[in-house]
Amino acid sequence: MRIGILTGGGDCPGLNAVIRAVVRTANGRYGDSIVGFRDGWRGLLEDRKVQIQNDDRVDRLLAKGGTMLGTARVNPDKLQAGIEQIKQTLDDNGVECLIPIGGEGTLTAARWLSDEGVPVIGVPKTIDNDIACTDVTFGHDTALSIATEAIDRLHTTAESHQRVMLVEVMGRHAGWIAMNAGMASGAHLTLVPEEPFDVDRVCRMIKRRFQHGDSHFICVVAEGASPDPASMTLREGGIDEFGHKIFTGVAQQLGAEIERRIGKEVRTTVLGHIQRGGAPTSYDRILATRFGVHAAEAAHAGESGKMVALHGTRIDLVPLDEATKELKRVPEERLREAAAFFG
Amino acid sequence: MRIGILTGGGDCPGLNAVIRAVVRTANGRYGDSIVGFRDGWRGLLEDRKVQIQNDDRVDRLLAKGGTMLGTARVNPDKLQAGIEQIKQTLDDNGVECLIPIGGEGTLTAARWLSDEGVPVIGVPKTIDNDIACTDVTFGHDTALSIATEAIDRLHTTAESHQRVMLVEVMGRHAGWIAMNAGMASGAHLTLVPEEPFDVDRVCRMIKRRFQHGDSHFICVVAEGASPDPASMTLREGGIDEFGHKIFTGVAQQLGAEIERRIGKEVRTTVLGHIQRGGAPTSYDRILATRFGVHAAEAAHAGESGKMVALHGTRIDLVPLDEATKELKRVPEERLREAAAFFG
Amino acid sequence: MRIGILTGGGDCPGLNAVIRAVVRTANGRYGDSIVGFRDGWRGLLEDRKVQIQNDDRVDRLLAKGGTMLGTARVNPDKLQAGIEQIKQTLDDNGVECLIPIGGEGTLTAARWLSDEGVPVIGVPKTIDNDIACTDVTFGHDTALSIATEAIDRLHTTAESHQRVMLVEVMGRHAGWIAMNAGMASGAHLTLVPEEPFDVDRVCRMIKRRFQHGDSHFICVVAEGASPDPASMTLREGGIDEFGHKIFTGVAQQLGAEIERRIGKEVRTTVLGHIQRGGAPTSYDRILATRFGVHAAEAAHAGESGKMVALHGTRIDLVPLDEATKELKRVPEERLREAAAFFG
Amino acid sequence: MRIGILTGGGDCPGLNAVIRAVVRTANGRYGDSIVGFRDGWRGLLEDRKVQIQNDDRVDRLLAKGGTMLGTARVNPDKLQAGIEQIKQTLDDNGVECLIPIGGEGTLTAARWLSDEGVPVIGVPKTIDNDIACTDVTFGHDTALSIATEAIDRLHTTAESHQRVMLVEVMGRHAGWIAMNAGMASGAHLTLVPEEPFDVDRVCRMIKRRFQHGDSHFICVVAEGASPDPASMTLREGGIDEFGHKIFTGVAQQLGAEIERRIGKEVRTTVLGHIQRGGAPTSYDRILATRFGVHAAEAAHAGESGKMVALHGTRIDLVPLDEATKELKRVPEERLREAAAFFG
Repeated sequence: MRIGILTGGGDCPGLNAVIRAVVRTANGRYGDSIVGFRDGWRGLLEDRKVQIQNDDRVDRLLAKGGTMLGTARVNPDKLQAGIEQIKQTLDDNGVECLIPIGGEGTLTAARWLSDEGVPVIGVPKTIDNDIACTDVTFGHDTALSIATEAIDRLHTTAESHQRVMLVEVMGRHAGWIAMNAGMASGAHLTLVPEEPFDVDRVCRMIKRRFQHGDSHFICVVAEGASPDPASMTLREGGIDEFGHKIFTGVAQQLGAEIERRIGKEVRTTVLGHIQRGGAPTSYDRILATRFGVHAAEAAHAGESGKMVALHGTRIDLVPLDEATKELKRVPEERLREAAAFFG
Repeated sequence: MRIGILTGGGDCPGLNAVIRAVVRTANGRYGDSIVGFRDGWRGLLEDRKVQIQNDDRVDRLLAKGGTMLGTARVNPDKLQAGIEQIKQTLDDNGVECLIPIGGEGTLTAARWLSDEGVPVIGVPKTIDNDIACTDVTFGHDTALSIATEAIDRLHTTAESHQRVMLVEVMGRHAGWIAMNAGMASGAHLTLVPEEPFDVDRVCRMIKRRFQHGDSHFICVVAEGASPDPASMTLREGGIDEFGHKIFTGVAQQLGAEIERRIGKEVRTTVLGHIQRGGAPTSYDRILATRFGVHAAEAAHAGESGKMVALHGTRIDLVPLDEATKELKRVPEERLREAAAFFG
Repeated sequence: MRIGILTGGGDCPGLNAVIRAVVRTANGRYGDSIVGFRDGWRGLLEDRKVQIQNDDRVDRLLAKGGTMLGTARVNPDKLQAGIEQIKQTLDDNGVECLIPIGGEGTLTAARWLSDEGVPVIGVPKTIDNDIACTDVTFGHDTALSIATEAIDRLHTTAESHQRVMLVEVMGRHAGWIAMNAGMASGAHLTLVPEEPFDVDRVCRMIKRRFQHGDSHFICVVAEGASPDPASMTLREGGIDEFGHKIFTGVAQQLGAEIERRIGKEVRTTVLGHIQRGGAPTSYDRILATRFGVHAAEAAHAGESGKMVALHGTRIDLVPLDEATKELKRVPEERLREAAAFFG
Repeated sequence: MRIGILTGGGDCPGLNAVIRAVVRTANGRYGDSIVGFRDGWRGLLEDRKVQIQNDDRVDRLLAKGGTMLGTARVNPDKLQAGIEQIKQTLDDNGVECLIPIGGEGTLTAARWLSDEGVPVIGVPKTIDNDIACTDVTFGHDTALSIATEAIDRLHTTAESHQRVMLVEVMGRHAGWIAMNAGMASGAHLTLVPEEPFDVDRVCRMIKRRFQHGDSHFICVVAEGASPDPASMTLREGGIDEFGHKIFTGVAQQLGAEIERRIGKEVRTTVLGHIQRGGAPTSYDRILATRFGVHAAEAAHAGESGKMVALHGTRIDLVPLDEATKELKRVPEERLREAAAFFG
């Protein structure tokens, strides 16, 4: 059998571990031939590829961050327009099943292909943990660990200086990293995209904490969190008076607003790309490996239009159209659970 | 309401985080009074205790390894004989619900108490991950991370010296740490208590790998793994010619045997207690915190004879007698899944 | 004897370890009485203090980031105006020698006090490593480790996306963190305050690397690096069109400029405060401990106007006025040594 | 010019970083040709080698543990007997200067070669830090960090169980790792090869600490530490009653003895090989890189019979015969300094 593989979307710890497990299983166990397409869907649009075998080089990928195939973000419209081209490339290369590893965009494109009759088994990937129908995806635990370790460090500095500190973490549409890192690091408040925040309430919480004699305040802010428009207007990027783009995100704007309102020094840290690179945690290596094994097995068993998913301790297959229907946001009860530790 | 709490059995990263979450929820939210018993069940047998409040000191426990209450292993017979004394102490202290945090021994004692009519909500704890009815327990992810990081290090040395290396990890009755650390670190073989190993087969695998030009062989050995008696006899401790106890475990004995049989130098590392101490991973901090919240909520809601448990992403309550019926060992299909990466 | 102690300036991993070692030596060995002043020099200006003893609480400080005494940055003019007040507080508290732990500002104030006849033994502290007369100061190794680990992570993402990445690290006046982290992480270019950079040259290096088929470019930028004015104008903060302060630093401005000039996507990460918090590395714990021991010994031996300093493997005393004469910048030959790995 | 390179002795984090820096400097800057000999001196005895160029593969070595050239321990007598063969191989390969990277054994062999007129520049390597004439060698900081992190973890478990814990670290002839890790982790006692220990005194210290109400006792033991023969006899390996070799080292024997004498449970952990593998710390990456640069420069400049060495912040050349005269043990005053924190 001939299996295609690609990695799409933003970088994520564990991509290489999935590739290794797919190759190990499909090529190593079943003798399948594996063709890797470069730089996500672009490799299929432009027929750029590489033959991959179950050799020592692939074996070493397990703990390596990034993806040996490269990745790229492709505009969804361009992707939809290119579906025919993609089918052609798959045909030309004799690919009998494609295993795309990626987030919402990649899996949606996978669904389109599947709808067109191309055998596809998707592997969900997102540090943000916002893909539906699976308990969690690989990459999230690593991102969470990095964010938690960073906030651990900020605690001691905030205490020594009696400061308010804001930490912006990834999560444009869902607050999983923020909520989990906030809970793991004992943050005093976490702001997530699921609930608009009220700046007045944030300021009151800070003041109350310092009035009670506590020495610092740490607030985790998801990049996609936004204020209740009645309480503060968020500028969307924009251009400064020199004609340069302004990069300040929600945390920096909130920090400036808090300083203005309560007159306390605020320090803001934007963790940025360090959350999505480097060696995966042991948890993510195992999850990525299991996803890879089961995706290869499913491809080999003739399954299609499915995505591997974690349910409890089992790896199951779920329909791609279920999984791509909507993003998985943090549910109400988890937000309540986390909020019990605020203040 | 008045809630008792204790931590029993071996040390485990996350114990303090559970205590913090119970106190935060029961005392902080509901105003319950919390009495902590010292050194596990011993504190109840000897009425040694401490009042705990939702203060700054407790708040700092989140990332701290160990347990502020102390812990101890108590002989089960002694514990069973002391049940009346324990009930007396609980009565004397006006404890309306007891939250014991511990492994199989502690949870079994909890069940005895519950059978006697004492309200009890157990919290499962084991780095070994061998408690039934829950996907996983806190502490396991930390132990696994430590073992994986150690094996990552051994890989480079084994390669540089072209050596066979054995690593003994914890797991007396179940091979979860061994199997997971082996999978996460790309070990070439993992030996677990669930399946007796054949020394000849181990030796053949090693020889085959080196014949294929590979440069090293890493084997993870659970401390509870044992050889098929036909292939090797394991000495059980014993006394040397000076009358001193011999501490060599299964990995060291297997290492000596491999050296003897195939004449290759073998190095053995016993990870030991570093697997159960220190700061918990972010995963374990979150799980421990959620267990603590839900245990306190259950106690407050008048539940009894139950244990908190992780199912997928939910924390549920399961009957203590279900959970303590038998140990959770690594199932056949997971062993097969892992074995695909051996050799 | 009665010894005063304070920690001044920004947070730095190892401050608590110095306090512990001073207390352990002066109080524990010699029975001296130790008074700690809170929040740096402010504690002396406002007579806020705490008695410290060689107890278990102090013993636990070794691995803890931050400072149990708190710290604050004080305006140098205000400090100079307050010298009489400070002397008064020291007198009132019977302090026979003061041990201030801090950076250039704190040590300069220490020198003023010494010039006025107050016995003072300074302990140099700066993650930036810019204090003269000592090989290195505690805190630098920790900052460097954090920066290196972060850049390690960025490498994999930059490779997967074939991107240019800029990382801004601390170092307003000296490029030690940037140069060392750049060398330790295999960065392709490092920009430091010691040498204005030419944006054209930076762009040429990037283009050349990609032309040679390399897949990514990582550039470490010290926050105090600045462009040759002929090649680019750096905006100094400033106000945007909404009247808000602009926080973009040198790395973000350089990133925008590179994008504009060569049309390649650039990602910028500003590491910020995570570089100065949290548990010190073993190297910094040892250096901080040795500094503390020797400062206490010097105070006890009646020394004054000196600073402890590392020379090779020895801890020496150097005159405070030598140490505060000028900042220690990265010398020419070290920049050349590092530059050999650029490109 | 044609330069030979080899790595000898035990594995050590930073070996690859030295190779990379030598290649980068000699081949990349000067266009020298580099021949790497495999598995230490064996590669020279058997003429097994590889051509190395300044390519991407070498560039990635910086953070990788182990050595791409392989290493081996060779019996000194065999080595001395093979000097003529080694000279022949060097001649046959046209090597104009050899850069051996290794510990005492490797550097002594390098001196022999140099005495025979072969141009040699040594690079000192030892996690043990026992090579003379240099402040420190690469690898030591990594070993120390690993040991410190492990002991940090043991602290919490020892406290929770109120236990005595012994940790055996590397250091056969010198106690640098033990002393430094003990100081960095706040151990209550450290035993080093430089001073025979008195078991009675160890037992008295433990008893005193518990009598004072302290909850645990951590003792770091260098593998080369030995008891005063009057206080305890150390068994040297030996054979048990089944005819098997006994592997128990000094820490396990001391642990058993303490249990016997004071009746307290003791737990012993032998860190073993995890101390010498894996990614080097940023400190070691920088030191290894600088050593490599300076060794290549020295070779290119026609120097011979020298070793690169760290003195303060400078890399100097020192005579190989000075450096190999005797091992560098922990001096008296450093032992006194460390001992102030015991008990």
